[in-house]
Amino acid sequence: MNWWQTDHTHNPAARCWVKGADGHESFPVQNLPLGLFSDGDSGPRAGVAIGNFVLDLGGLIDAGLLPELDMLSDLLRERLNELLALGAETRRALRHALFALLTDARHRDAVAPFLVPMAHADMHMPCDVGDYTDFYAGIHHAMRVGKLFRPDAPLLPNYRHVPIGYHGRASSVVLSGTPVKRPQGQLPGADGPRFGPSERLDLELELGVWIGPGNELGAPVPIAEAAEHIAGFCLLNDWSARDVQTWEYQPLGPFLAKNFLTSISPWIITPEALAPFRERAYPRGADEPTPLPYLMDADDQAHGGLKLELGVWLQTRAMRQAGLPETRLSGGGSQALYWTVQQMLAHHTVNGCNLMPGDLFGTGTISGEADGSEGSLLELTQGGKAPITLPSGETRTFLQDGDRLRISAVARADGFASIGFGECVGEVLDS
Amino acid sequence: MNWWQTDHTHNPAARCWVKGADGHESFPVQNLPLGLFSDGDSGPRAGVAIGNFVLDLGGLIDAGLLPELDMLSDLLRERLNELLALGAETRRALRHALFALLTDARHRDAVAPFLVPMAHADMHMPCDVGDYTDFYAGIHHAMRVGKLFRPDAPLLPNYRHVPIGYHGRASSVVLSGTPVKRPQGQLPGADGPRFGPSERLDLELELGVWIGPGNELGAPVPIAEAAEHIAGFCLLNDWSARDVQTWEYQPLGPFLAKNFLTSISPWIITPEALAPFRERAYPRGADEPTPLPYLMDADDQAHGGLKLELGVWLQTRAMRQAGLPETRLSGGGSQALYWTVQQMLAHHTVNGCNLMPGDLFGTGTISGEADGSEGSLLELTQGGKAPITLPSGETRTFLQDGDRLRISAVARADGFASIGFGECVGEVLDS
Repeated sequence: MNWWQTDHTHNPAARCWVKGADGHESFPVQNLPLGLFSDGDSGPRAGVAIGNFVLDLGGLIDAGLLPELDMLSDLLRERLNELLALGAETRRALRHALFALLTDARHRDAVAPFLVPMAHADMHMPCDVGDYTDFYAGIHHAMRVGKLFRPDAPLLPNYRHVPIGYHGRASSVVLSGTPVKRPQGQLPGADGPRFGPSERLDLELELGVWIGPGNELGAPVPIAEAAEHIAGFCLLNDWSARDVQTWEYQPLGPFLAKNFLTSISPWIITPEALAPFRERAYPRGADEPTPLPYLMDADDQAHGGLKLELGVWLQTRAMRQAGLPETRLSGGGSQALYWTVQQMLAHHTVNGCNLMPGDLFGTGTISGEADGSEGSLLELTQGGKAPITLPSGETRTFLQDGDRLRISAVARADGFASIGFGECVGEVLDS
Repeated sequence: MNWWQTDHTHNPAARCWVKGADGHESFPVQNLPLGLFSDGDSGPRAGVAIGNFVLDLGGLIDAGLLPELDMLSDLLRERLNELLALGAETRRALRHALFALLTDARHRDAVAPFLVPMAHADMHMPCDVGDYTDFYAGIHHAMRVGKLFRPDAPLLPNYRHVPIGYHGRASSVVLSGTPVKRPQGQLPGADGPRFGPSERLDLELELGVWIGPGNELGAPVPIAEAAEHIAGFCLLNDWSARDVQTWEYQPLGPFLAKNFLTSISPWIITPEALAPFRERAYPRGADEPTPLPYLMDADDQAHGGLKLELGVWLQTRAMRQAGLPETRLSGGGSQALYWTVQQMLAHHTVNGCNLMPGDLFGTGTISGEADGSEGSLLELTQGGKAPITLPSGETRTFLQDGDRLRISAVARADGFASIGFGECVGEVLDS
């Protein structure tokens, strides 16, 4: 079975006996994302989101309810790296077994004891992130940001040939909800740099990509095999200090402007859950170059894209105090990715670089082409020159203390249940 | 006791009862570097280099020979991250205890059973490298390389203010001796990129810096405390594919040009061993700006530099076949570092970025100002335009298949025993 094909687990008419799961905005039985949770005094362990509950995977296995998967028993504690290393076949077997248990009410009495209300569960980083790589595949983001810096040549000559990426900091990748401490650093000034807290704190709306089996050093992954190494997806907010970035980034790229914090959503949305939302890769115009063969595969071109609805939501402190809900700042679609995640992975390994289970990619900021679909305040406010006005009457160029920022992703397609990614939020602390 | 001060363990007249240790070119009793080794069927464990032997630290402790350090017993297997986390006080206590055992012949019978000949020991990566950051602190390297790309403005305006650095790839940091597989990738061409093995494979002579205790996310390390977080030093060769680099590096910095392999020497040379070789930080001229206060500390300015003699050595396959020894290509001094490693660390954390025990820094390529002290072939051959001639009559611009490249560092100072760093070698495989 191919990674873009659907089966009975995608049937939108399937009914789940867990209360509130059917039609759940994020976690219906067609989703079944993986995460690491704890409740009470027990240590972190693997769980699956279903409706407003977390299903304790290790508990299910120990009770003999997943008999064909009991080899997983030792892999479900403290971190999920080893589970991701197993690849698509195991993941699909797990999905099918869980789907069977959750859609047949005869299993209710046996399985229900392993459901933990989400309100009682603490989520943890699902994996120890060995290495974190951030790409730059959102072409409209690259174009808009390029225009701010180089109005005459917004896209550099390599952009349409190379899935541009750089290494980020793994140690400061944190879970949704972690407070955002405004970074200090060197800020550009007319008479040389000055020191202080960043005055241009921004978000970047990205997808995160979890790496599965990975490859040995020196052994590139061919594009046709790349999908096998992608274990799942999450939301990723690449918090950025634009003033620090402007001053520091030449010639070796962003560093302190980015590595103070990167927030991700806790649930690993599997490639299997997203199969109905596949679409063709970014359509290249006749005037655009064809990438080199190591990046091109017919299946990937036909099915390697992902169709997701993305959103950026803001609630300021004043809004919170006035009882105003968060407001949608912008949101586009993931079709703005010029490279598929399979192309990113094939590129990353073509020189022999080794990927490890639990490594993380960011796609780069995903902005749509249209106004109102920008994935960063840098774009939304044209580099801070065009403040936006909020429902509270406040204005924003960049993030202020007390701002609570949320990014979202939902997969929708005719004839399929919608799949949500869950939350990726952060509130800017007083500085 | 301050980190730059010497004590009785630096006495050059100290005599060690281990045969061949006194006057050893790298590992006299004044060095005592830490590493991870195995011999025969036993798993990796901590060892200390002394002469041509590895002293089994865990064995010593289990035998009760380091009574004040038996809390280390559990930390000495599989990886040294936890040992490095303990900081200078523990490291100094270990150094003093080992020095006492190795310089008093009355301990010979008890200790000698824990000496393993280096020829029987396999060395391992000393730590799991969580994150690897490469700086750009070699000012003559930055100047020469800058001239190749921007003849009119070799040093960018931020260079003298910002300890420029970027994140490298942790998974492909490997031990000395690992073969070098020539990376494939996109090479620049007149009609767009072409695909193939790199034709401009280069070395970069750097020092590696091992991080000790580290800091919590959001809690910067002040410059005055930075030295406490540096656990040791090694050699580091940042293998580079110059053709890939030229094409890919804008706007986010080097990626596939670097992440295929980074080689390090196996022994962690402690700050204590290097105390006699401290010197003032890079002397700034009157026309150079004073860095911002978070980078400036009187002790660091007075003692934060390191005086090492560095070397680059090459033996081609033809030289090997003709029985010719390796030839010294170049070599400079580590005084060419514009920033002290303490400044690098304070800068890295000033925005709240968290460093973890066992993280690794590279200093950036260390080239002297004079011809013949370049730390890369890019500089030695002026971007490939000026081939060098070898004793075999061969010429080189960049590395050829079969080339065996070694980098070296020795600390020498009047009145002290010399301290060597050991080997960092790599041979380029046939492609």
